[in-house]
Amino acid sequence: MPGALWFDPLQNNMDWTKTLQQFRPSIIISGWLTPPIPAHTPDLRFVCHVAGSVRRHVPRALLERGVVVGNWGDTVAEVVAEGALSMILASLRRLQYFGDLMHRQQGWQWAPAGTKSLYDRKVGIHGFGTVVHRLLPLLKPFRCSVRIFTAGVPDSWYAEHGAERAGSLEQLFEWADVVVEAEALTATNRGIIGETLLRRMRPEGVFVNIARGALVDEPALAKAAKEGGLRVALDVFQEEPLPPDSPLRDLPEVVLTPHVAGPTEDRAHLCGEWAIENLKRNLRGEPIRSPVTVAIYDRST
Amino acid sequence: MPGALWFDPLQNNMDWTKTLQQFRPSIIISGWLTPPIPAHTPDLRFVCHVAGSVRRHVPRALLERGVVVGNWGDTVAEVVAEGALSMILASLRRLQYFGDLMHRQQGWQWAPAGTKSLYDRKVGIHGFGTVVHRLLPLLKPFRCSVRIFTAGVPDSWYAEHGAERAGSLEQLFEWADVVVEAEALTATNRGIIGETLLRRMRPEGVFVNIARGALVDEPALAKAAKEGGLRVALDVFQEEPLPPDSPLRDLPEVVLTPHVAGPTEDRAHLCGEWAIENLKRNLRGEPIRSPVTVAIYDRST
Repeated sequence: MPGALWFDPLQNNMDWTKTLQQFRPSIIISGWLTPPIPAHTPDLRFVCHVAGSVRRHVPRALLERGVVVGNWGDTVAEVVAEGALSMILASLRRLQYFGDLMHRQQGWQWAPAGTKSLYDRKVGIHGFGTVVHRLLPLLKPFRCSVRIFTAGVPDSWYAEHGAERAGSLEQLFEWADVVVEAEALTATNRGIIGETLLRRMRPEGVFVNIARGALVDEPALAKAAKEGGLRVALDVFQEEPLPPDSPLRDLPEVVLTPHVAGPTEDRAHLCGEWAIENLKRNLRGEPIRSPVTVAIYDRST
Repeated sequence: MPGALWFDPLQNNMDWTKTLQQFRPSIIISGWLTPPIPAHTPDLRFVCHVAGSVRRHVPRALLERGVVVGNWGDTVAEVVAEGALSMILASLRRLQYFGDLMHRQQGWQWAPAGTKSLYDRKVGIHGFGTVVHRLLPLLKPFRCSVRIFTAGVPDSWYAEHGAERAGSLEQLFEWADVVVEAEALTATNRGIIGETLLRRMRPEGVFVNIARGALVDEPALAKAAKEGGLRVALDVFQEEPLPPDSPLRDLPEVVLTPHVAGPTEDRAHLCGEWAIENLKRNLRGEPIRSPVTVAIYDRST
């Protein structure tokens, strides 16, 4: 059965599984709202996912069976890295605090301003995926020392990317001025960033999360931030939209964004262009750019 | 008359000029509050200014006479450059808007988010002093095209720093996605950033000022920003503290900071260390680091 079929997940009058069984697509172009693709979709050979993480949409069994899976690849990793840098700088520079003071309260403040610089700082990163690969060159001009803690990446990556390996997550949090949460969410690390860990951070330390909210014990973060004077910058949350009564909203100098670290709107078209290029390659029988391998699948957020 | 004398400009019971005449210092260590040093201070051979611009404190005639003048030099230029980058990213990413929405209004917003990235953007810079020298390496990983407009710097600087020369200020404002104001304030460029120039900027263009507020016609900026949808980030103002009723405070997405681009508080000690090193050098009869030459004096903010 040739041709194309458009499935709109916002319309309830189509049954996704039944549609796939009848239409038997060889290629699925998917997005954030695409329902999970059944593992038994028989003729499928390529899932072109025009977004980041495929785990909610593509069962691992499809990859194991040899179905090619692509996502928005490197087009977005660098933009998320930029989002992380923006949040680090905004926290160190107290932009949210000064925004409130000057934009909302008609105020002014001479020194002491409590501002900090990123130059020569210790940056600890939890995670070592493509976003982190792109964040390191952005930190480089600031002469930061970088340590990374993660599980299961090749040893050579540390030297290759100019980062040291932290001995443990505890050591990472204790050592760093700035902690960036960039780890993949897995079955075993849900809520791993808890109170004990956060209490190891130094006062006025910066904690940034651009990965997944569920990695963090949010009530513990709110408590540790308030009592330990942490500066917190969060783009992702356990529950999105963030509930109106979340204690995270009340932190005195928190930087909050609604899961927009990447892609920025001006670059969304690059994701489309990347997908079209991959569709062309797949139709020509060529390998796609940045395929989601089983190893990447297991490490993705 | 050997020894040291401490002059506290906040005490009114000492006459500055008379004190200098009686004490006849060979070295003056000055700061933001130091009154202008008279041109006829006879034995003076070194002004060690523990801040940035010396123009309000040291008359040009002293430099012409051979008095050595030092300031906080490169220790701060890179931090101000970092401040500029922070403000560029905060504007592109709408951090102030999202801060208001999420921190103050308990809100959330799915796409369209209006976020933009710095990657591959056109950055126009007005000015080419030490801050700009330090800003260019920070922009480099973002693959920005950079054009600069300024008066009186050597032609070789453009190639050396990887920037193009803009034909005029008008062309700079028309071409750029992001304009950074970093020019020295002189007798001839007061209010040079006026309505005609600002109206040349593209909608949602970003205008950042980390130089001097008096370069900008502030009412024109507020008007052009509102009507032209500019994103404005300002660290400096014509009048500081910024008057509570300034129209700049009302701009929908303005990023405002109270003249804190640099030095950040954590790095202020470096300015002191720099000054001590220069004092040692001067006392040993050696040249100081980064002396303020007449050329630099004429170009400083």
